[in-house]
Amino acid sequence: MSDVAARVKVIAFDVFGTVVDWHGSVSRELASMNLGVDPDEFALAWRAGYQPAMREVMDKGEWVILDDLHRRILNRVLDEFKLAKLGEAARQHLNLVWHRLDPWPDSVEGLTRLKSKFIVCSLSNGNIGLLTEMAKHAGLPWDCILSAENFSRYKPHPDTYLGVARTFAVEPGQVMLAAAHHGDLEAARCCGLETAYIERPFEYGRKKPKNVAPWSANTLHASSIVHLAEQLNC
Amino acid sequence: MSDVAARVKVIAFDVFGTVVDWHGSVSRELASMNLGVDPDEFALAWRAGYQPAMREVMDKGEWVILDDLHRRILNRVLDEFKLAKLGEAARQHLNLVWHRLDPWPDSVEGLTRLKSKFIVCSLSNGNIGLLTEMAKHAGLPWDCILSAENFSRYKPHPDTYLGVARTFAVEPGQVMLAAAHHGDLEAARCCGLETAYIERPFEYGRKKPKNVAPWSANTLHASSIVHLAEQLNC
Repeated sequence: MSDVAARVKVIAFDVFGTVVDWHGSVSRELASMNLGVDPDEFALAWRAGYQPAMREVMDKGEWVILDDLHRRILNRVLDEFKLAKLGEAARQHLNLVWHRLDPWPDSVEGLTRLKSKFIVCSLSNGNIGLLTEMAKHAGLPWDCILSAENFSRYKPHPDTYLGVARTFAVEPGQVMLAAAHHGDLEAARCCGLETAYIERPFEYGRKKPKNVAPWSANTLHASSIVHLAEQLNC
Repeated sequence: MSDVAARVKVIAFDVFGTVVDWHGSVSRELASMNLGVDPDEFALAWRAGYQPAMREVMDKGEWVILDDLHRRILNRVLDEFKLAKLGEAARQHLNLVWHRLDPWPDSVEGLTRLKSKFIVCSLSNGNIGLLTEMAKHAGLPWDCILSAENFSRYKPHPDTYLGVARTFAVEPGQVMLAAAHHGDLEAARCCGLETAYIERPFEYGRKKPKNVAPWSANTLHASSIVHLAEQLNC
Protein backbone atom coordinates (compact mmCIF):
# COMPACT_ATOMS: atom_id res chain seq x y z
CA MET A 1 0.00 0.00 0.00
CA SER A 2 2.91 2.38 0.64
CA ASP A 3 3.54 2.45 -3.14
CA VAL A 4 0.09 3.90 -3.68
CA ALA A 5 0.53 6.37 -0.83
CA ALA A 6 3.76 7.61 -2.42
CA ARG A 7 2.36 7.86 -5.94
CA VAL A 8 -1.02 9.47 -5.29
CA LYS A 9 -1.13 13.29 -4.89
CA VAL A 10 -4.87 13.97 -4.94
CA ILE A 11 -7.79 12.11 -3.35
CA ALA A 12 -11.15 13.07 -4.88
CA PHE A 13 -14.28 12.06 -2.98
CA ASP A 14 -17.69 11.21 -4.18
CA VAL A 15 -19.95 13.01 -1.70
CA PHE A 16 -23.60 11.83 -1.59
CA GLY A 17 -23.58 8.56 0.34
CA THR A 18 -19.79 8.47 0.64
CA VAL A 19 -19.10 11.53 2.82
CA VAL A 20 -22.62 12.55 3.86
CA ASP A 21 -25.67 10.51 4.87
CA TRP A 22 -28.26 11.78 2.39
CA HIS A 23 -30.91 9.22 3.32
CA GLY A 24 -30.80 9.86 7.06
CA SER A 25 -30.59 13.64 6.65
CA VAL A 26 -33.43 13.94 4.13
CA SER A 27 -35.63 11.52 6.10
CA ARG A 28 -35.10 13.45 9.35
CA GLU A 29 -36.01 16.76 7.74
CA LEU A 30 -39.10 15.25 6.09
CA ALA A 31 -40.17 13.68 9.40
CA SER A 32 -39.90 17.08 11.12
CA MET A 33 -42.27 18.57 8.54
CA ASN A 34 -45.14 16.23 9.53
CA LEU A 35 -46.41 15.87 5.98
CA GLY A 36 -48.17 12.59 6.66
CA VAL A 37 -45.89 10.57 4.38
CA ASP A 38 -43.29 7.89 5.12
CA PRO A 39 -40.08 9.98 5.22
CA ASP A 40 -37.98 6.92 4.41
CA GLU A 41 -39.93 6.12 1.24
CA PHE A 42 -40.12 9.77 0.17
CA ALA A 43 -36.33 10.16 0.47
CA LEU A 44 -35.76 7.00 -1.57
CA ALA A 45 -38.22 8.11 -4.28
CA TRP A 46 -36.59 11.54 -4.53
CA ARG A 47 -33.12 10.03 -4.85
CA ALA A 48 -34.34 7.42 -7.34
CA GLY A 49 -35.12 10.23 -9.77
CA TYR A 50 -31.52 11.42 -9.74
CA GLN A 51 -29.79 9.00 -12.14
CA PRO A 52 -32.49 9.18 -14.86
CA ALA A 53 -32.61 13.00 -14.63
CA MET A 54 -28.84 13.26 -15.10
CA ARG A 55 -28.85 10.80 -17.96
CA GLU A 56 -31.59 12.78 -19.69
CA VAL A 57 -29.57 16.00 -19.39
CA MET A 58 -26.42 14.32 -20.66
CA ASP A 59 -28.26 12.65 -23.54
CA LYS A 60 -29.62 16.01 -24.66
CA GLY A 61 -26.14 17.55 -24.46
CA GLU A 62 -27.41 20.34 -22.22
CA TRP A 63 -26.19 21.43 -18.80
CA VAL A 64 -28.53 21.79 -15.81
CA ILE A 65 -27.19 22.02 -12.24
CA LEU A 66 -28.23 19.46 -9.66
CA ASP A 67 -30.24 21.95 -7.58
CA ASP A 68 -32.54 22.37 -10.57
CA LEU A 69 -32.74 18.62 -11.25
CA HIS A 70 -33.59 18.00 -7.58
CA ARG A 71 -36.40 20.52 -7.88
CA ARG A 72 -37.88 18.93 -11.02
CA ILE A 73 -37.83 15.52 -9.33
CA LEU A 74 -39.25 16.94 -6.09
CA ASN A 75 -42.25 18.39 -7.93
CA ARG A 76 -42.99 14.97 -9.42
CA VAL A 77 -42.49 13.06 -6.16
CA LEU A 78 -44.76 15.50 -4.29
CA ASP A 79 -47.48 14.67 -6.83
CA GLU A 80 -46.90 10.93 -6.40
CA PHE A 81 -47.17 11.25 -2.63
CA LYS A 82 -50.37 13.36 -2.93
CA LEU A 83 -48.67 16.49 -1.63
CA ALA A 84 -49.34 18.73 -4.63
CA LYS A 85 -50.73 21.33 -2.21
CA LEU A 86 -47.28 22.08 -0.75
CA GLY A 87 -46.55 25.77 -1.44
CA GLU A 88 -43.67 27.34 -3.36
CA ALA A 89 -41.75 28.63 -0.30
CA ALA A 90 -41.89 25.21 1.37
CA ARG A 91 -40.76 23.52 -1.86
CA GLN A 92 -37.82 25.91 -2.21
CA HIS A 93 -36.77 25.32 1.38
CA LEU A 94 -37.16 21.55 1.16
CA ASN A 95 -35.21 21.41 -2.10
CA LEU A 96 -32.21 22.89 -0.30
CA VAL A 97 -32.14 20.02 2.21
CA TRP A 98 -29.37 18.65 -0.04
CA HIS A 99 -27.26 21.64 1.12
CA ARG A 100 -27.84 20.61 4.74
CA LEU A 101 -26.82 16.95 4.72
CA ASP A 102 -25.03 15.58 7.78
CA PRO A 103 -21.66 13.82 7.50
CA TRP A 104 -21.08 10.20 8.45
CA PRO A 105 -19.45 10.09 11.91
CA ASP A 106 -15.94 9.38 10.54
CA SER A 107 -15.96 11.85 7.61
CA VAL A 108 -14.55 15.02 9.21
CA GLU A 109 -11.76 13.19 11.05
CA GLY A 110 -10.89 11.08 8.01
CA LEU A 111 -10.71 14.03 5.59
CA THR A 112 -8.70 16.09 8.11
CA ARG A 113 -6.13 13.30 8.46
CA LEU A 114 -5.87 12.77 4.70
CA LYS A 115 -5.31 16.53 4.15
CA SER A 116 -2.02 16.32 6.01
CA LYS A 117 -0.53 14.39 3.10
CA PHE A 118 -2.75 14.74 0.03
CA ILE A 119 -4.82 17.33 -1.79
CA VAL A 120 -8.33 16.34 -0.72
CA CYS A 121 -11.19 17.52 -2.92
CA SER A 122 -14.76 16.65 -3.74
CA LEU A 123 -15.76 15.24 -7.11
CA SER A 124 -19.52 15.25 -6.89
CA ASN A 125 -22.44 15.72 -9.22
CA GLY A 126 -23.71 18.30 -6.74
CA ASN A 127 -23.26 21.87 -7.93
CA ILE A 128 -20.58 24.12 -6.43
CA GLY A 129 -23.01 26.23 -4.40
CA LEU A 130 -24.63 23.10 -2.95
CA LEU A 131 -21.25 21.58 -2.03
CA THR A 132 -20.02 24.85 -0.48
CA GLU A 133 -23.05 25.23 1.77
CA MET A 134 -22.88 21.53 2.66
CA ALA A 135 -19.22 21.89 3.62
CA LYS A 136 -20.05 24.81 5.93
CA HIS A 137 -22.98 22.91 7.46
CA ALA A 138 -21.12 19.63 7.92
CA GLY A 139 -17.65 21.03 8.66
CA LEU A 140 -16.04 19.25 5.69
CA PRO A 141 -12.44 20.51 5.40
CA TRP A 142 -11.99 20.31 1.61
CA ASP A 143 -8.80 21.69 0.15
CA CYS A 144 -10.87 22.40 -2.93
CA ILE A 145 -14.45 21.85 -4.04
CA LEU A 146 -14.63 20.28 -7.49
CA SER A 147 -17.97 19.46 -9.03
CA ALA A 148 -19.42 18.12 -12.25
CA GLU A 149 -20.26 21.81 -12.72
CA ASN A 150 -16.54 22.57 -13.25
CA PHE A 151 -16.59 20.34 -16.30
CA SER A 152 -20.24 20.76 -17.44
CA ARG A 153 -20.46 16.95 -17.44
CA TYR A 154 -21.94 14.57 -14.90
CA LYS A 155 -20.10 11.52 -13.63
CA PRO A 156 -19.49 8.94 -14.99
CA HIS A 157 -18.36 11.05 -18.00
CA PRO A 158 -14.55 10.73 -18.36
CA ASP A 159 -14.14 14.54 -18.48
CA THR A 160 -14.94 14.65 -14.76
CA TYR A 161 -12.28 12.15 -13.61
CA LEU A 162 -9.66 13.38 -16.07
CA GLY A 163 -10.62 16.94 -15.17
CA VAL A 164 -9.37 16.40 -11.62
CA ALA A 165 -5.96 15.31 -12.92
CA ARG A 166 -5.82 18.25 -15.32
CA THR A 167 -6.84 20.74 -12.63
CA PHE A 168 -3.89 19.74 -10.48
CA ALA A 169 -1.48 19.10 -13.39
CA VAL A 170 -0.89 15.46 -12.43
CA GLU A 171 -1.25 12.14 -14.24
CA PRO A 172 -4.57 10.25 -13.85
CA GLY A 173 -2.66 7.59 -11.87
CA GLN A 174 -1.75 10.22 -9.27
CA VAL A 175 -5.43 10.75 -8.48
CA MET A 176 -7.48 8.38 -6.32
CA LEU A 177 -11.28 8.41 -6.37
CA ALA A 178 -12.88 7.41 -3.07
CA ALA A 179 -16.53 6.39 -3.33
CA ALA A 180 -19.17 4.11 -1.88
CA HIS A 181 -20.30 3.11 -5.38
CA HIS A 182 -18.56 0.52 -7.52
CA GLY A 183 -19.90 2.00 -10.78
CA ASP A 184 -18.34 5.39 -10.06
CA LEU A 185 -15.04 3.71 -9.19
CA GLU A 186 -15.12 1.57 -12.32
CA ALA A 187 -15.55 4.62 -14.54
CA ALA A 188 -12.65 6.33 -12.76
CA ARG A 189 -10.48 3.21 -13.15
CA CYS A 190 -11.15 3.21 -16.91
CA CYS A 191 -9.64 6.71 -16.96
CA GLY A 192 -6.52 5.48 -15.17
CA LEU A 193 -7.34 6.68 -11.64
CA GLU A 194 -6.62 4.69 -8.48
CA THR A 195 -9.76 3.72 -6.56
CA ALA A 196 -10.82 3.29 -2.94
CA TYR A 197 -14.16 1.80 -1.98
CA ILE A 198 -15.73 3.13 1.24
CA GLU A 199 -18.29 0.87 2.94
CA ARG A 200 -21.57 2.66 3.63
CA PRO A 201 -23.92 -0.23 4.35
CA PHE A 202 -26.77 2.06 5.45
CA GLU A 203 -26.65 4.55 2.59
CA TYR A 204 -30.30 3.66 1.80
CA GLY A 205 -31.34 3.47 5.45
CA ARG A 206 -31.27 0.79 8.13
CA LYS A 207 -34.12 -1.10 6.49
CA LYS A 208 -32.26 -1.59 3.21
CA PRO A 209 -28.67 -2.58 3.98
CA LYS A 210 -26.39 -2.46 0.95
CA ASN A 211 -23.95 -5.14 -0.15
CA VAL A 212 -20.54 -3.69 0.67
CA ALA A 213 -18.42 -6.67 -0.35
CA PRO A 214 -14.99 -5.80 -1.82
CA TRP A 215 -14.31 -5.80 -5.55
CA SER A 216 -10.79 -6.92 -6.26
CA ALA A 217 -10.39 -4.33 -9.02
CA ASN A 218 -10.28 -1.50 -6.46
CA THR A 219 -6.89 -0.42 -5.17
CA LEU A 220 -8.13 -0.06 -1.59
CA HIS A 221 -11.21 -1.11 0.40
CA ALA A 222 -12.02 0.72 3.63
CA SER A 223 -14.71 0.46 6.27
CA SER A 224 -14.65 4.26 6.74
CA ILE A 225 -12.72 7.37 5.67
CA VAL A 226 -10.67 7.08 8.87
CA HIS A 227 -9.79 3.53 7.84
CA LEU A 228 -8.73 4.84 4.43
CA ALA A 229 -6.49 7.43 6.17
CA GLU A 230 -4.93 4.64 8.24
CA GLN A 231 -4.21 2.58 5.12
CA LEU A 232 -2.50 5.61 3.57
CA ASN A 233 -0.41 6.22 6.72
CA CYS A 234 -2.17 9.45 7.68
CA MET B 1 -22.78 49.48 7.45
CA SER B 2 -25.13 47.03 9.14
CA ASP B 3 -27.39 47.21 6.05
CA VAL B 4 -24.58 45.87 3.90
CA ALA B 5 -23.72 43.19 6.44
CA ALA B 6 -27.34 42.01 6.38
CA ARG B 7 -27.69 42.05 2.60
CA VAL B 8 -24.39 40.46 1.53
CA LYS B 9 -24.19 36.64 1.53
CA VAL B 10 -20.88 36.03 -0.24
CA ILE B 11 -17.52 37.81 0.02
CA ALA B 12 -15.24 37.03 -2.92
CA PHE B 13 -11.56 37.96 -2.55
CA ASP B 14 -9.03 38.97 -5.08
CA VAL B 15 -5.93 37.02 -4.02
CA PHE B 16 -2.59 38.24 -5.48
CA GLY B 17 -1.69 41.34 -3.48
CA THR B 18 -4.94 41.37 -1.51
CA VAL B 19 -4.64 38.11 0.49
CA VAL B 20 -1.05 37.09 -0.22
CA ASP B 21 2.17 39.10 -0.54
CA TRP B 22 3.37 38.08 -4.01
CA HIS B 23 6.19 40.61 -4.17
CA GLY B 24 7.76 39.68 -0.84
CA SER B 25 7.31 35.94 -1.40
CA VAL B 26 8.70 35.89 -4.95
CA SER B 27 11.61 38.19 -3.99
CA ARG B 28 12.54 36.02 -1.01
CA GLU B 29 12.57 32.85 -3.12
CA LEU B 30 14.64 34.54 -5.84
CA ALA B 31 17.11 35.86 -3.25
CA SER B 32 17.55 32.35 -1.86
CA MET B 33 18.50 31.11 -5.36
CA ASN B 34 21.56 33.42 -5.56
CA LEU B 35 21.10 34.07 -9.26
CA GLY B 36 23.04 37.32 -9.17
CA VAL B 37 20.02 39.48 -10.04
CA ASP B 38 18.08 42.04 -7.99
CA PRO B 39 15.20 39.88 -6.64
CA ASP B 40 13.04 42.95 -6.18
CA GLU B 41 13.37 44.02 -9.80
CA PHE B 42 12.99 40.49 -11.14
CA ALA B 43 9.73 40.00 -9.20
CA LEU B 44 8.36 43.30 -10.51
CA ALA B 45 9.33 42.45 -14.11
CA TRP B 46 7.68 39.01 -13.87
CA ARG B 47 4.48 40.47 -12.48
CA ALA B 48 4.49 43.30 -15.04
CA GLY B 49 4.05 40.70 -17.79
CA TYR B 50 0.83 39.44 -16.24
CA GLN B 51 -1.75 42.00 -17.42
CA PRO B 52 -0.56 42.09 -21.07
CA ALA B 53 -0.42 38.27 -21.20
CA MET B 54 -4.00 37.96 -19.95
CA ARG B 55 -5.22 40.64 -22.32
CA GLU B 56 -3.59 38.86 -25.24
CA VAL B 57 -5.31 35.59 -24.33
CA MET B 58 -8.67 37.30 -23.92
CA ASP B 59 -8.29 39.23 -27.18
CA LYS B 60 -7.63 35.98 -29.03
CA GLY B 61 -10.68 34.38 -27.41
CA GLU B 62 -8.59 31.43 -26.23
CA TRP B 63 -8.17 30.08 -22.72
CA VAL B 64 -4.75 29.52 -21.11
CA ILE B 65 -4.36 29.00 -17.37
CA LEU B 66 -2.21 31.36 -15.33
CA ASP B 67 0.47 28.75 -14.58
CA ASP B 68 1.17 28.62 -18.30
CA LEU B 69 1.12 32.42 -18.70
CA HIS B 70 3.52 32.74 -15.76
CA ARG B 71 5.86 30.31 -17.49
CA ARG B 72 5.80 32.18 -20.82
CA ILE B 73 6.59 35.45 -19.03
CA LEU B 74 9.28 33.80 -16.90
CA ASN B 75 11.12 32.57 -19.99
CA ARG B 76 11.16 36.10 -21.37
CA VAL B 77 12.22 37.75 -18.10
CA LEU B 78 15.04 35.22 -17.64
CA ASP B 79 16.35 36.28 -21.06
CA GLU B 80 16.06 39.96 -20.13
CA PHE B 81 18.01 39.34 -16.91
CA LYS B 82 20.70 37.34 -18.78
CA LEU B 83 19.70 34.08 -17.11
CA ALA B 84 18.91 32.08 -20.24
CA LYS B 85 21.19 29.31 -18.93
CA LEU B 86 18.75 28.42 -16.13
CA GLY B 87 17.72 24.78 -16.70
CA GLU B 88 14.26 23.32 -17.24
CA ALA B 89 13.89 21.76 -13.77
CA ALA B 90 14.81 25.04 -12.06
CA ARG B 91 12.38 26.95 -14.30
CA GLN B 92 9.56 24.54 -13.48
CA HIS B 93 10.25 24.83 -9.77
CA LEU B 94 10.57 28.62 -9.84
CA ASN B 95 7.36 28.96 -11.86
CA LEU B 96 5.46 27.29 -9.04
CA VAL B 97 6.57 29.94 -6.53
CA TRP B 98 3.12 31.44 -7.20
CA HIS B 99 1.70 28.33 -5.47
CA ARG B 100 3.85 29.09 -2.41
CA LEU B 101 3.01 32.73 -1.68
CA ASP B 102 2.79 33.80 1.95
CA PRO B 103 -0.30 35.52 3.35
CA TRP B 104 -0.32 39.06 4.74
CA PRO B 105 -0.22 38.85 8.57
CA ASP B 106 -3.97 39.59 8.96
CA SER B 107 -5.32 37.36 6.15
CA VAL B 108 -5.92 34.06 7.95
CA GLU B 109 -7.55 35.68 10.98
CA GLY B 110 -9.64 37.99 8.82
CA LEU B 111 -10.95 35.25 6.52
CA THR B 112 -11.64 32.98 9.49
CA ARG B 113 -13.73 35.67 11.19
CA LEU B 114 -15.65 36.49 8.00
CA LYS B 115 -16.46 32.78 7.46
CA SER B 116 -18.56 32.78 10.61
CA LYS B 117 -21.17 34.90 8.84
CA PHE B 118 -20.56 34.82 5.08
CA ILE B 119 -19.58 32.43 2.32
CA VAL B 120 -15.93 33.40 1.79
CA CYS B 121 -14.39 32.45 -1.55
CA SER B 122 -11.54 33.45 -3.80
CA LEU B 123 -12.13 35.14 -7.14
CA SER B 124 -8.67 35.18 -8.63
CA ASN B 125 -7.12 34.95 -12.05
CA GLY B 126 -4.92 32.20 -10.59
CA ASN B 127 -5.93 28.71 -11.76
CA ILE B 128 -7.69 26.32 -9.40
CA GLY B 129 -4.64 24.11 -8.85
CA LEU B 130 -2.49 27.13 -8.03
CA LEU B 131 -5.08 28.52 -5.58
CA THR B 132 -5.54 25.12 -3.90
CA GLU B 133 -1.83 24.62 -3.28
CA MET B 134 -1.50 28.22 -2.12
CA ALA B 135 -4.37 27.73 0.34
CA LYS B 136 -2.65 24.65 1.80
CA HIS B 137 0.69 26.48 2.00
CA ALA B 138 -0.70 29.69 3.49
CA GLY B 139 -3.50 28.17 5.60
CA LEU B 140 -6.23 30.15 3.82
CA PRO B 141 -9.60 28.85 5.07
CA TRP B 142 -11.70 29.35 1.91
CA ASP B 143 -15.24 28.02 1.93
CA CYS B 144 -14.78 27.58 -1.79
CA ILE B 145 -12.06 28.29 -4.33
CA LEU B 146 -13.41 30.12 -7.37
CA SER B 147 -11.11 31.13 -10.17
CA ALA B 148 -11.22 32.74 -13.58
CA GLU B 149 -10.75 29.10 -14.67
CA ASN B 150 -14.32 28.32 -13.53
CA PHE B 151 -15.61 30.78 -16.10
CA SER B 152 -12.88 30.53 -18.78
CA ARG B 153 -12.59 34.32 -18.57
CA TYR B 154 -10.11 36.52 -16.78
CA LYS B 155 -11.12 39.44 -14.59
CA PRO B 156 -12.22 42.10 -15.34
CA HIS B 157 -14.61 40.20 -17.66
CA PRO B 158 -18.17 40.49 -16.25
CA ASP B 159 -18.66 36.70 -16.48
CA THR B 160 -16.29 36.31 -13.53
CA TYR B 161 -18.10 38.66 -11.13
CA LEU B 162 -21.56 37.58 -12.24
CA GLY B 163 -20.37 33.97 -12.14
CA VAL B 164 -19.89 34.21 -8.37
CA ALA B 165 -23.50 35.33 -7.94
CA ARG B 166 -24.76 32.59 -10.24
CA THR B 167 -22.67 29.91 -8.49
CA PHE B 168 -24.33 30.69 -5.18
CA ALA B 169 -27.77 31.50 -6.65
CA VAL B 170 -27.82 35.04 -5.25
CA GLU B 171 -28.24 38.51 -6.74
CA PRO B 172 -25.07 40.43 -7.74
CA GLY B 173 -25.84 42.90 -4.91
CA GLN B 174 -25.54 40.03 -2.41
CA VAL B 175 -21.91 39.51 -3.38
CA MET B 176 -19.06 41.76 -2.18
CA LEU B 177 -15.71 41.79 -3.93
CA ALA B 178 -12.78 42.58 -1.64
CA ALA B 179 -9.60 43.67 -3.41
CA ALA B 180 -6.55 45.89 -3.13
CA HIS B 181 -7.07 47.17 -6.68
CA HIS B 182 -9.55 49.89 -7.61
CA GLY B 183 -9.83 48.69 -11.22
CA ASP B 184 -10.97 45.23 -10.14
CA LEU B 185 -13.51 46.78 -7.76
CA GLU B 186 -14.78 49.15 -10.42
CA ALA B 187 -15.46 46.30 -12.84
CA ALA B 188 -17.29 44.41 -10.07
CA ARG B 189 -19.34 47.50 -9.22
CA CYS B 190 -20.42 47.81 -12.86
CA CYS B 191 -21.86 44.30 -12.51
CA GLY B 192 -23.84 45.32 -9.41
CA LEU B 193 -21.55 43.87 -6.73
CA GLU B 194 -20.74 45.59 -3.44
CA THR B 195 -17.05 46.47 -3.07
CA ALA B 196 -14.48 46.63 -0.28
CA TYR B 197 -11.03 48.11 -0.80
CA ILE B 198 -8.22 46.58 1.26
CA GLU B 199 -5.12 48.74 1.82
CA ARG B 200 -1.90 46.96 0.82
CA PRO B 201 0.58 49.82 0.64
CA PHE B 202 3.57 47.50 0.17
CA GLU B 203 2.13 45.23 -2.54
CA TYR B 204 5.06 46.24 -4.80
CA GLY B 205 7.63 46.17 -2.00
CA ARG B 206 8.82 48.63 0.64
CA LYS B 207 10.67 50.69 -1.95
CA LYS B 208 7.54 51.41 -4.00
CA PRO B 209 4.69 52.25 -1.63
CA LYS B 210 1.30 52.33 -3.33
CA ASN B 211 -1.33 55.07 -2.98
CA VAL B 212 -4.04 53.48 -0.84
CA ALA B 213 -6.34 56.50 -0.58
CA PRO B 214 -10.06 55.68 -0.42
CA TRP B 215 -12.33 55.95 -3.45
CA SER B 216 -15.78 57.07 -2.42
CA ALA B 217 -17.44 54.69 -4.90
CA ASN B 218 -16.44 51.67 -2.79
CA THR B 219 -18.91 50.43 -0.22
CA LEU B 220 -16.20 49.82 2.40
CA HIS B 221 -12.56 50.77 2.88
CA ALA B 222 -10.42 48.70 5.24
CA SER B 223 -6.82 48.81 6.43
CA SER B 224 -6.73 44.98 6.58
CA ILE B 225 -8.99 41.93 6.23
CA VAL B 226 -9.39 41.92 10.02
CA HIS B 227 -10.57 45.54 9.78
CA LEU B 228 -13.08 44.46 7.11
CA ALA B 229 -14.33 41.72 9.44
CA GLU B 230 -14.77 44.29 12.22
CA GLN B 231 -16.77 46.58 9.93
CA LEU B 232 -19.04 43.64 9.07
CA ASN B 233 -19.52 42.75 12.74
CA CYS B 234 -17.56 39.48 12.59
